[in-house]
Amino acid sequence: MVVVNGSQQAADLLARVWLDPGDAAVVEDPGYPEAALALRAYGVYVLPSPVDAEGLAVERLPAAGDPPLGGPRLVYVTPSHQFPTGTVLSLRRRLELLEWAAARGALVVEDDYDSEFRYEGRPLESLQGLDSAGLVAYLGSFSTALFPPLRIGYAVLPPALVEPFVAAKWLADRQTATLDQQVLADFIAEGHFARHLRRMGRLYRQRRDALLGALHEHLAGVVEPGGSGAGLHLVAWLRGELDESSVAEAAAANGVGVYPVSRFRLGSPGRPGLLLGYAALEASQIRAGTRQLASAIAGVTASQSSS
Amino acid sequence: MVVVNGSQQAADLLARVWLDPGDAAVVEDPGYPEAALALRAYGVYVLPSPVDAEGLAVERLPAAGDPPLGGPRLVYVTPSHQFPTGTVLSLRRRLELLEWAAARGALVVEDDYDSEFRYEGRPLESLQGLDSAGLVAYLGSFSTALFPPLRIGYAVLPPALVEPFVAAKWLADRQTATLDQQVLADFIAEGHFARHLRRMGRLYRQRRDALLGALHEHLAGVVEPGGSGAGLHLVAWLRGELDESSVAEAAAANGVGVYPVSRFRLGSPGRPGLLLGYAALEASQIRAGTRQLASAIAGVTASQSSS
Repeated sequence: MVVVNGSQQAADLLARVWLDPGDAAVVEDPGYPEAALALRAYGVYVLPSPVDAEGLAVERLPAAGDPPLGGPRLVYVTPSHQFPTGTVLSLRRRLELLEWAAARGALVVEDDYDSEFRYEGRPLESLQGLDSAGLVAYLGSFSTALFPPLRIGYAVLPPALVEPFVAAKWLADRQTATLDQQVLADFIAEGHFARHLRRMGRLYRQRRDALLGALHEHLAGVVEPGGSGAGLHLVAWLRGELDESSVAEAAAANGVGVYPVSRFRLGSPGRPGLLLGYAALEASQIRAGTRQLASAIAGVTASQSSS
Repeated sequence: MVVVNGSQQAADLLARVWLDPGDAAVVEDPGYPEAALALRAYGVYVLPSPVDAEGLAVERLPAAGDPPLGGPRLVYVTPSHQFPTGTVLSLRRRLELLEWAAARGALVVEDDYDSEFRYEGRPLESLQGLDSAGLVAYLGSFSTALFPPLRIGYAVLPPALVEPFVAAKWLADRQTATLDQQVLADFIAEGHFARHLRRMGRLYRQRRDALLGALHEHLAGVVEPGGSGAGLHLVAWLRGELDESSVAEAAAANGVGVYPVSRFRLGSPGRPGLLLGYAALEASQIRAGTRQLASAIAGVTASQSSS
């Protein structure tokens, strides 16, 4: 395990030590724009691959040897709570992905962001735990669970990657601030982190429930809530004809900040949706914001049908 | 000005945004091994260039167009207190270096490490201050002046480099821990940093004086102290026939840790010397250590002349 400045640095260093310019790599679509950009910055061809209700559609991954590229040498996934859709990569898909990677010698980067906050179901075993081929790099971070100003994450690496990764980390910035690491280690050892996770988990679940309740009350039949079993946000899927950017703009005019899912799409367009963050809002703010969002959607619907 | 995790990250990001694989870059010899390694990691050809009593020998810099390489596109220098020799880049050389860079459109990376602790003379104007061509990136760090566990440095960049550098920083690790930055900003604003520099400057000067005195007392005519007008260490140059590694090993056996200068040489060998750090030692430890070092040198001298 190597300590880094958050998952972004781990992804950057993995691209650096594992990939060459001209290599291909798969990212989820929709997915993290910064993961794709970090890969592209190294001259890597990014192949966006679709996500469905079971997470990354492994059977639709690009085959090896597609001209003019070689087969993908890396797959970047968020299996615990796919970003942004919130779906969980099913066990079947996890096993398929590992088999796919082993057949090609491709590295699976498992970004386990938001996994600390789970509200439903039993957690599935991580790809890293299921891996027997030494082809999974597991990335965790304390930035989301504690607070973003803290830039501490970690990478659990296949043994063969440890030495080059540590060398790349040393050249990138020597080390992650050790003072912050010491404070965090005490915070964990003294039990504060576990208490924080329990307390915030209860609070975030209440806020998620408030959002799901408000969506049901004000927007039933208009939006469909996506995966909300974990994390700090959910996607409200819109009916196909609604323009998500217009909705986001109208919501912003009503004082409600939402992200259109298209902002996280890398390849082809898809079903419109809105990313709704709920963790930082009181339940009363969530209810008021949902009413404003409903009014914004009604306005856009009226304007679209009259035009 | 962009905040980074210390000078190493700034050098790494500058290599990333300014250089392409196959480009050539100049580093000081002897110099920082990590600066050269960071450049090489991007497929850059590193050209070590000699340092003399005035710092980097600008008139001996490799010319443009040396086959098979193009001319150097970057020069990495430590003008305030050359690492490791401690020499100060003269004003004449500074102006020559800027002229050389402007003629080639090469970037000068001015790593101003250790500049906070100056014991003699008036500081020369920085290359960044003298630059009129927008070709100097100035790197500063708080790690040495405060403590290494803090990973905060900064880069003062030519305007044209700010946007690509900030983008590269975002992809590398988003941002430097903002909590640490806020604490440091308060520490500076409340005057603690200036007081710390004054207090430690007095203390380090006493320790430097103790080392110079002890070297004079125990090793006069045997070693020649190098540039000691600033910083936290000095180089004790040895007579040409003395093997510096044997001396360092014998000193270690006597409980004294010194670095052979050859550890920081990148190209051809040169005059043997030992890097002596004094900042973290009490004056009494410095005197005792110098006696041990003198005894180690005497032992190696006797063994070399008898063999």
